[in-house]
Amino acid sequence: MGQASGLDKLKEECGVIGIYGDTEAANLAYLGLHALQHRGQEGAGIVSNQGGEFRSFRGLGLVNDVFRPQDLEGLVGNMAIGHVRYSTTGESSIRNVQPLSASYRYGKVAVAHNGNLVNAASLKDRLEERGSIFNTSSDTEAILHLIATSKQTTFVNRLVDALSQVRGAYSLVLLTEDALIAVRDPMGIRPLVMGECGDATIFASESCALDLLGGDYLREVHPGEMIIVDRTGRTSLHPFPAEERKACVFEHVYFSKPSSITFGEAVYTRRFDMGRALAREYPVDADWVFAVPDSGTAAALGYSTEAGIPFQQGLLRSHYVGRTFIEPSQKIRDFGVKLKLSPVRSLIKGQRVVVVDDSLVRGTTSKKIVRMLRQAGAAEIHMRICSPPIVASCFYGVDTPTREELIAHTKTPEEICAHMEADSLGYLSIDAMHATMGAPREAYCDACFTGRYPIAVEDHVDQDQLDLFSEPSEDTEARE
Amino acid sequence: MGQASGLDKLKEECGVIGIYGDTEAANLAYLGLHALQHRGQEGAGIVSNQGGEFRSFRGLGLVNDVFRPQDLEGLVGNMAIGHVRYSTTGESSIRNVQPLSASYRYGKVAVAHNGNLVNAASLKDRLEERGSIFNTSSDTEAILHLIATSKQTTFVNRLVDALSQVRGAYSLVLLTEDALIAVRDPMGIRPLVMGECGDATIFASESCALDLLGGDYLREVHPGEMIIVDRTGRTSLHPFPAEERKACVFEHVYFSKPSSITFGEAVYTRRFDMGRALAREYPVDADWVFAVPDSGTAAALGYSTEAGIPFQQGLLRSHYVGRTFIEPSQKIRDFGVKLKLSPVRSLIKGQRVVVVDDSLVRGTTSKKIVRMLRQAGAAEIHMRICSPPIVASCFYGVDTPTREELIAHTKTPEEICAHMEADSLGYLSIDAMHATMGAPREAYCDACFTGRYPIAVEDHVDQDQLDLFSEPSEDTEARE
Amino acid sequence: MGQASGLDKLKEECGVIGIYGDTEAANLAYLGLHALQHRGQEGAGIVSNQGGEFRSFRGLGLVNDVFRPQDLEGLVGNMAIGHVRYSTTGESSIRNVQPLSASYRYGKVAVAHNGNLVNAASLKDRLEERGSIFNTSSDTEAILHLIATSKQTTFVNRLVDALSQVRGAYSLVLLTEDALIAVRDPMGIRPLVMGECGDATIFASESCALDLLGGDYLREVHPGEMIIVDRTGRTSLHPFPAEERKACVFEHVYFSKPSSITFGEAVYTRRFDMGRALAREYPVDADWVFAVPDSGTAAALGYSTEAGIPFQQGLLRSHYVGRTFIEPSQKIRDFGVKLKLSPVRSLIKGQRVVVVDDSLVRGTTSKKIVRMLRQAGAAEIHMRICSPPIVASCFYGVDTPTREELIAHTKTPEEICAHMEADSLGYLSIDAMHATMGAPREAYCDACFTGRYPIAVEDHVDQDQLDLFSEPSEDTEARE
Amino acid sequence: MGQASGLDKLKEECGVIGIYGDTEAANLAYLGLHALQHRGQEGAGIVSNQGGEFRSFRGLGLVNDVFRPQDLEGLVGNMAIGHVRYSTTGESSIRNVQPLSASYRYGKVAVAHNGNLVNAASLKDRLEERGSIFNTSSDTEAILHLIATSKQTTFVNRLVDALSQVRGAYSLVLLTEDALIAVRDPMGIRPLVMGECGDATIFASESCALDLLGGDYLREVHPGEMIIVDRTGRTSLHPFPAEERKACVFEHVYFSKPSSITFGEAVYTRRFDMGRALAREYPVDADWVFAVPDSGTAAALGYSTEAGIPFQQGLLRSHYVGRTFIEPSQKIRDFGVKLKLSPVRSLIKGQRVVVVDDSLVRGTTSKKIVRMLRQAGAAEIHMRICSPPIVASCFYGVDTPTREELIAHTKTPEEICAHMEADSLGYLSIDAMHATMGAPREAYCDACFTGRYPIAVEDHVDQDQLDLFSEPSEDTEARE
Repeated sequence: MGQASGLDKLKEECGVIGIYGDTEAANLAYLGLHALQHRGQEGAGIVSNQGGEFRSFRGLGLVNDVFRPQDLEGLVGNMAIGHVRYSTTGESSIRNVQPLSASYRYGKVAVAHNGNLVNAASLKDRLEERGSIFNTSSDTEAILHLIATSKQTTFVNRLVDALSQVRGAYSLVLLTEDALIAVRDPMGIRPLVMGECGDATIFASESCALDLLGGDYLREVHPGEMIIVDRTGRTSLHPFPAEERKACVFEHVYFSKPSSITFGEAVYTRRFDMGRALAREYPVDADWVFAVPDSGTAAALGYSTEAGIPFQQGLLRSHYVGRTFIEPSQKIRDFGVKLKLSPVRSLIKGQRVVVVDDSLVRGTTSKKIVRMLRQAGAAEIHMRICSPPIVASCFYGVDTPTREELIAHTKTPEEICAHMEADSLGYLSIDAMHATMGAPREAYCDACFTGRYPIAVEDHVDQDQLDLFSEPSEDTEARE
Repeated sequence: MGQASGLDKLKEECGVIGIYGDTEAANLAYLGLHALQHRGQEGAGIVSNQGGEFRSFRGLGLVNDVFRPQDLEGLVGNMAIGHVRYSTTGESSIRNVQPLSASYRYGKVAVAHNGNLVNAASLKDRLEERGSIFNTSSDTEAILHLIATSKQTTFVNRLVDALSQVRGAYSLVLLTEDALIAVRDPMGIRPLVMGECGDATIFASESCALDLLGGDYLREVHPGEMIIVDRTGRTSLHPFPAEERKACVFEHVYFSKPSSITFGEAVYTRRFDMGRALAREYPVDADWVFAVPDSGTAAALGYSTEAGIPFQQGLLRSHYVGRTFIEPSQKIRDFGVKLKLSPVRSLIKGQRVVVVDDSLVRGTTSKKIVRMLRQAGAAEIHMRICSPPIVASCFYGVDTPTREELIAHTKTPEEICAHMEADSLGYLSIDAMHATMGAPREAYCDACFTGRYPIAVEDHVDQDQLDLFSEPSEDTEARE
Repeated sequence: MGQASGLDKLKEECGVIGIYGDTEAANLAYLGLHALQHRGQEGAGIVSNQGGEFRSFRGLGLVNDVFRPQDLEGLVGNMAIGHVRYSTTGESSIRNVQPLSASYRYGKVAVAHNGNLVNAASLKDRLEERGSIFNTSSDTEAILHLIATSKQTTFVNRLVDALSQVRGAYSLVLLTEDALIAVRDPMGIRPLVMGECGDATIFASESCALDLLGGDYLREVHPGEMIIVDRTGRTSLHPFPAEERKACVFEHVYFSKPSSITFGEAVYTRRFDMGRALAREYPVDADWVFAVPDSGTAAALGYSTEAGIPFQQGLLRSHYVGRTFIEPSQKIRDFGVKLKLSPVRSLIKGQRVVVVDDSLVRGTTSKKIVRMLRQAGAAEIHMRICSPPIVASCFYGVDTPTREELIAHTKTPEEICAHMEADSLGYLSIDAMHATMGAPREAYCDACFTGRYPIAVEDHVDQDQLDLFSEPSEDTEARE
Repeated sequence: MGQASGLDKLKEECGVIGIYGDTEAANLAYLGLHALQHRGQEGAGIVSNQGGEFRSFRGLGLVNDVFRPQDLEGLVGNMAIGHVRYSTTGESSIRNVQPLSASYRYGKVAVAHNGNLVNAASLKDRLEERGSIFNTSSDTEAILHLIATSKQTTFVNRLVDALSQVRGAYSLVLLTEDALIAVRDPMGIRPLVMGECGDATIFASESCALDLLGGDYLREVHPGEMIIVDRTGRTSLHPFPAEERKACVFEHVYFSKPSSITFGEAVYTRRFDMGRALAREYPVDADWVFAVPDSGTAAALGYSTEAGIPFQQGLLRSHYVGRTFIEPSQKIRDFGVKLKLSPVRSLIKGQRVVVVDDSLVRGTTSKKIVRMLRQAGAAEIHMRICSPPIVASCFYGVDTPTREELIAHTKTPEEICAHMEADSLGYLSIDAMHATMGAPREAYCDACFTGRYPIAVEDHVDQDQLDLFSEPSEDTEARE
């Protein structure tokens, strides 16, 4: 989420942005990517279009580090798309940094993708049969090949043709030689919003990007909708058969920035309400409510309000944790978590504390937090997790560990509580979670909490989702 | 403070650390500097001592960026001192990065200094008369020259001789060929604490460094106390005539990390209590209390508690703001503050909000925050500043702007409220501030709020404190 | 050539190397590329193969700068191919740095190419018709697509199928999952040699790479020959119809390192003999013979020997000229050439000097050399060019300027002599050049001196060879 | 020398340059340092002076790498001094990079020094007695302290006072707030020349710097002469008692660039003549004369001329050898020398070759060259060294290895010949060397060949010259 605790969280694969109609399109994309940085920190890229000429710059790392002023200056044009990403393979390779761009029979096209295709392997097989060469390990490349090999005569038809062959989650922004196109899969699994900023049309994974740009939020791109923006204005198409919406509920639990409007609902409010529900389900007599900052804060405030127990900032988050910290060779106990979180001892000593976190993946950090609080003198430590137990992997665009690594897949809540040596542990129930949402339960994908996948996953994916796409080579290009 | 909002704050010049008795002394110093990073982000350095051989590494930037593993590996020895700093001159020069080290008649010495000398100019004149050459623009170098030219026969006596000639604020850690020495000026203006970690003795500007290292807080180094740690153990001396303590009250208002024990008092508690007092002095009917994160959070929670108005996380702080952000050429209104803070619109629209900040220096950021909240639809915006107006510059180690730049020096609170277009503005009174402190008012320096300086400042310093020390040359050394 | 004067020379596009059968294959490739560095200084890359797993590292710049120890360590396997290149487009893009690698229906393949295809544009059109996507602006990519779309059932047959469709110059090394393959176009335009080093088989553009590796030179890869090295040993095929050899004569004039055996002949000897011939064709009464170092040295020594005029080192070459030298804003006359060459005034003053250079492209540097010698007091300056006038562009792999920029295309030798203000100018005749070669004139391509192209060049290539392949986007990836 | 073979040579400590009277003074200094790069490759720096304001930039590495355009732009002013250096201690430290600059009682001063003081240790002792602090391990700093502590009332008198206390070799350029001063020790051990470029006065270690700048060589700064350049013009003083000139003969053997006029004599001519003398002293029947390029080339041409044996370029020097080359883990025999030199096999096979080098220090490279030539098939290899055996260390500014490492100190020529497995070895005799010089033998320091030191060396220096000055700490500052 926007306040990523950087601790033990699931990682989403990416955020996308598209701008049409501003001579500083790439600059706006750059700033928008900054606002979406919490959705991907491994790489970033922008492709701009000036009169049909594409320019691109991509790199590994944070938006801030990837782009230098001279790089942005080169990205001229009044249209641009951008992307931030997590790597889905073990090693980050600049080849996989999006947007991907290609030249094919009818011209140029660039694409930025949030989501994950579940039939990418069979698509790849089929395309390679025909002689296509794959240059990345990204499933997104299959979409480009499908466009390039389509027999349709207009770009939009080729794109529809291509997407009608893919299954899975996708929120896409595409750049053609004369248009910006946004499209969302028929189930609307991943978010995508539309806004305006002056004369420009903006698409972004989350509305917080519009806030930074000083733009206005218009609405979601609807599930299954394709919006084409070109000289003639905005055209909305619904080229795919309607399906039931399956919005990712985890966006509200953790991914989306609390200041965003996601799937039409205010994220902060959803989390605060989930915190209240958690307090009703798992009340406890205590002195303070703490959050695991920053992602647990809204839920902790909800818990505090409902429980009538004062909220305090008992765990401080460090603002200076870089990527590569040199560890002492004589290990300091729980060193990693101490670098990121500082306990306020004067609040903790002798007190009974409730610690609210948004979700629990592997459980390793929580265990360290409990120990750190215990060392600081806490009398009782009550862990409250503001989501149901995560029991299944995601195949629609979230970089989940394998099922075996999920603590709730292998342990009961009681065992987890014992494992982390907390005095009590409470998870929000699945019913309570859904009760706080603005749409009926059927409108959400909650596969990570239930194992009920709205789109069938191909067998071999289940075996080992990460090796699906072996790269042509593990390529790490050097700096210029 | 430890949760620096990075917005419109005073900047302290530095933090220091010293380690004696651990074979990984430099590694511990490195981690300790990380915990003290909020006290200085312009440069960092460490000097280690192995059997009388000094090794040093210094650089411009964050601790994390300055040191690579190979740099730390070179810093062998069981004693080390470290320093993080703000630049006091316009340009950062690696020459001024501490610790300073020198070779003189009786051997080697290294020093790290938190504070500022008020008679540095006249000392420099006097030393240059005798033929001393100055290599830095730092007042700390004068201390080294005074040691080198002292006629005393032991290092401790030379140090006492040197310090008896300086006036101002200093918390020092020094490394000699066989000892680590910590010393604090007789008024104890800047903090310095002592702790233990295994067999090692640790001195640090704040106790939060001990928390990270897994060490135990023992006590403050007392005002005027000199502690020598060597093979024979720890020796405490009080070589200077006693003076009234004048601890910097601003450490509790802003500088120190909320998790630290500074001047013997828990910083978080002081801020929470100041927030409560502020609510009593400036109550208002409102829907929410917001903090300017993170430095205003403890005070905002105090205000919320006392006022009975719910605290909400209405302003989110970005975790990805680097040093050099590329601005769009077509200016986005209030761009800078939007990069750092995101408003949660769903909480703001139509609501009456109290915004608590710890202090107000130039007032530029607050004005932007008010405007941003107004754009997000706030019905009323009540600014609450959890300290008295800052009306005077600091000459004891805080990088204050000139008096003319301090908004409270040139404007009344009413004018400031009008300037920032808030619906109301309240400053904590000086009496209320002192009432929350653990010691009587006379035990604190509050010159920035009152203009009453405990140590007379030399005339020409007042004129232009920053040009006091002109460097021999504006030297910026290149990388290796 | 190996001693590139770095002045006003034609630039060849690349050098290639391939290693089979050494556990340090990538290390050997790295060293071999270093020996071939004079063939391309814009970028370098290596792909290694361990049991069918490809690893690749590529970057812009010199071999020395591209690879760090950790990069090489990652390139495990007992087979590797490598490439050094000049950029053929104005901007260097890491996308175009070879070896190119790809994943297709039947597995993985990587290729490094020295040469240039003349029907690349029509191949690209045809391949895009079928739906192929191009990711680079390199003509080499067309070869990969032809392999991927071939209906043949073995790799060798697919490769033969692919190459039978291309026209132009190519010396290729390819890596498949289990073999290293070297192949040279039927005319043998660009060089490629085979050697051994212990148990390893090595292919390289020039034999100087074998010298550095301590290997033995075996023979040329013959024109039109394909050599497959795999577990079963070395297999030689001649899959293409025989054509007359057309070895690039410019390899002997300038490109190849004087220590190499190219097209079966010792390069140093050819140049020395051309210098002798030049002395016979253009004798002059003078005091000294100078070379434009280092590429003119062998020819100058030949001239000196034949003419009986002593050779002296009158122009010294600087060893410290980096890529980006900061020019003074007040221009020093002939600054660029002075940075690279220093005149030995004591040899020049009042003397009549012959200056031997290997070839003349634009003539700008020669003009500056004449002026520099004149300023140093030379009494007479006689320029001798050890090749015929360059009057036509190369389309077989040399980065020639357009015809209009070639001084000999627009000016007669007399005009050139006047232009550079020399006292006389002599070019080696085309007959004399061929007379020094080891094979009859028909066995060489001398198109740059005669305009007689052995392979017809497609019309539109002639128009603007550089824009043939527009990239999908001008992509410049950032460093990690 | 200017064409440093980079192989097995003595290293001089530095080159200096000074410019007065050009608004681009720092730019000219930068270019001048480039021309002097062969005199020091470990570090470079420039100090400029604009109206009394000094600006400085220094860094480790080549001139080309140290300065970026923005760095040079900051160095405003119409006076500048610059320095290139070798490190004299094992580790390069930016602290020791010159020019050194300091602020003292009477203002600012900067100095760049070529040479070495032999009483630096006792000066340091004496200065530290008085309380001076040393910040570098450079003997040059003692000069600054002597100036700062002098009781004289004008800068020139303070400088004379300071220099009258030092013993050793020094060619200095100094910058004061209003003047540029050049001074050379009374024996004139190290070179220093004066030139003009437009209105500007230029001092440089060698005249080749003037050639690059397009300036005119005027004359040497005389031994013991001090030249002050300020608003009133140039003033020449001879403040020291006259002593016999002792110019370093090694400048003519190796250090100076062949294109320079050093000590009033053309370096190229001296080397050519020494080569002729060597041919008379050690003739041999052979097919070719080769040089160890580039430093042996002038001597080899002299040898060839006198012996009537043709000179050929049998060893090619690589132009792409960077500082840090990754070695293969499976060692290639004589790898290091092969990276730098390529044998031209076609010239070597079955031939009897004479190889001329300028001097022999440790002898390790020569041994590898012999082996490499043998492997290339040479029938006979005759090594000719164009200087007498080096038997003693230098204490006047050359970074000589200890006496024990000098091959000629421990072995006779016969033993050396056997050691390097050459067919014969001949050294130029000391008498022949002096006979080619322009002044009588007494006017040169030839201590490295004779052990006769013109200035007595203090005892403890002899023991271990490198540890004389222990640094205050081994400081390696990080990049910004």
